[in-house]
Amino acid sequence: MRGEPTVILAEGFSGDTHYGKTMRGVLRYRPDDVRAILDSEAAGGTIEGVPVVGSVADAAALGARVALVGVATQGGRFPASWQTILRDCVSAGISVENGLHVFLTDDEELVALAREAGVELRDLRRPPAGLDCPTGENIRVPAHRVLTVGSDCAIGKMTVALELEREARSRGVASEFVPTGQTGIAIAGWGISVDAVVADFIAGAAEQLVVDGARRGGELLLVEGQGSLSHPAYSGVTLGLLHGSAPQTFILCHRAGATEVDGYPGHPLLSLSALVALHESIALPACPAKVVAIALNTATLTDAEAAAACLDATAETGLPAADPVRHGPGPLLDAVLERGRSLG
Amino acid sequence: MRGEPTVILAEGFSGDTHYGKTMRGVLRYRPDDVRAILDSEAAGGTIEGVPVVGSVADAAALGARVALVGVATQGGRFPASWQTILRDCVSAGISVENGLHVFLTDDEELVALAREAGVELRDLRRPPAGLDCPTGENIRVPAHRVLTVGSDCAIGKMTVALELEREARSRGVASEFVPTGQTGIAIAGWGISVDAVVADFIAGAAEQLVVDGARRGGELLLVEGQGSLSHPAYSGVTLGLLHGSAPQTFILCHRAGATEVDGYPGHPLLSLSALVALHESIALPACPAKVVAIALNTATLTDAEAAAACLDATAETGLPAADPVRHGPGPLLDAVLERGRSLG
Repeated sequence: MRGEPTVILAEGFSGDTHYGKTMRGVLRYRPDDVRAILDSEAAGGTIEGVPVVGSVADAAALGARVALVGVATQGGRFPASWQTILRDCVSAGISVENGLHVFLTDDEELVALAREAGVELRDLRRPPAGLDCPTGENIRVPAHRVLTVGSDCAIGKMTVALELEREARSRGVASEFVPTGQTGIAIAGWGISVDAVVADFIAGAAEQLVVDGARRGGELLLVEGQGSLSHPAYSGVTLGLLHGSAPQTFILCHRAGATEVDGYPGHPLLSLSALVALHESIALPACPAKVVAIALNTATLTDAEAAAACLDATAETGLPAADPVRHGPGPLLDAVLERGRSLG
Repeated sequence: MRGEPTVILAEGFSGDTHYGKTMRGVLRYRPDDVRAILDSEAAGGTIEGVPVVGSVADAAALGARVALVGVATQGGRFPASWQTILRDCVSAGISVENGLHVFLTDDEELVALAREAGVELRDLRRPPAGLDCPTGENIRVPAHRVLTVGSDCAIGKMTVALELEREARSRGVASEFVPTGQTGIAIAGWGISVDAVVADFIAGAAEQLVVDGARRGGELLLVEGQGSLSHPAYSGVTLGLLHGSAPQTFILCHRAGATEVDGYPGHPLLSLSALVALHESIALPACPAKVVAIALNTATLTDAEAAAACLDATAETGLPAADPVRHGPGPLLDAVLERGRSLG
């Protein structure tokens, strides 16, 4: 959670950019908290200025009090090789924060060890008790609800929401990032991982999140999107979140140049214009929503290629397009605020 | 399960047609198994020829060995008043089958009583262990996969799938009903309630179901749809099931004349033509799917009104339309089989 000296557990994931999503998110948005990254294969180096260590003892020596599982594996299973590391953390008096579908608190032996050591085991994906279906309060939440949606998983939907929140706050807008997944929760310190709730209650959980976001003072809610409406594995979570969070506004996120669902060969992505039409046609008639901008992830492109990709996206969709990390979130936020004014 | 002498527990739901979905489904498709219906407010009467009794003892006297919870409440909670009935069943040596989200096997006291009495507690919605994301096997299942989709919940998607299966079998087609909810499971004796799995695994559970359906010998799979793509609470389940079961063919179900989501005032239904377009545009590009017919639920209409509703639906969509219960499933199956031939 924000403010705690943290070691990110990334054992065995050196160089894998896809599954280091939680690590990268926390490094970018809670950099001051991160004391070390544990990955014995890369020990001695640094990642974004943070020392990579080879053992829990070395992380403890650097002041870490919480260990965050920094990898999100597909389907959310726990690599067996990690059992020793988790036990080492507990023995060293380090609490463990875990965002996988497999829960630390279901491991009775580890729970007993943690109790003895007086440390916490936090399962970020454990759903809160008492979830149910939406009540209709979502549509009445007195806030402009913006959902980041996308062409695929792991392309920057959380990043776009966080960048927009930061920019909106800097302009004096009462805005709130609404975390819907384990990484967002690890960054913001609250939220529900909507992919881990009972399927019938996805929309109910999403409703609860926008209600909570408004209670926290957000007049502009930047809701972290999940998956994609055209993802062969995760689309159910995407649509439940979409209807439950009841956005008036979408930002459509896309990795520039991608043409196939990552990890699903033979599954082409939909075009940006098809995605715009699909999102607008599936929004509830009781809460119509518009795509107002395209957020491109251009991390692997040159400046010239990134600029060309934005021009292409605008030509295809008629919407402003920018990479909020490369170009700053200003143009995207302008489109969001203009939409907010049109809603009155 | 099929073949067991059963009492349907319907206490307190006299006259409520919406929430007696499980009861009505089992009465229609497993009529020979049902010995009694328990509802103390209606005791002494009959429902579709089955005696309504006022106590568990009366049901036991009629030979019931299994009690099926016959009501599906919204969100799937257990009415508190039922505790006595459940305990009476167990004491009388009657096993209990439950399709709510709240599990009998989580009630330690009831579990102990059942163990003593030597009866079973079956939670039809309890997900199987080991669910994960789809592997891609769904698209390769050597069967024509048909999914019943709809404009709302509880309008007959399960009924349409069961009627099509019966008609297909009578024509000698190796067909299999694929149950995806508690009522379908109570009727067919197998399946997964996809609304009760962890949200990330909806599509994975649906994949497993079509794989199992083909293993059972189905060359034509009639997959029971859930919810609606435009339902404010359940759309996530709908889309995960849609992508995970990888249908080539949809039958679009609709309650003739309905204009609003049942139980969600202020939420208009999409038009049939909008629903056809939405389903076809959200099918995965790797597994394109077509709506081939409209199944209308005309239960509350006169014959003339029903005929007019079918003509209207055809005029709007260009597709054949019929009520499989009133008119027989023949025209709908014809459309399915023609689509199957076009797939080769």
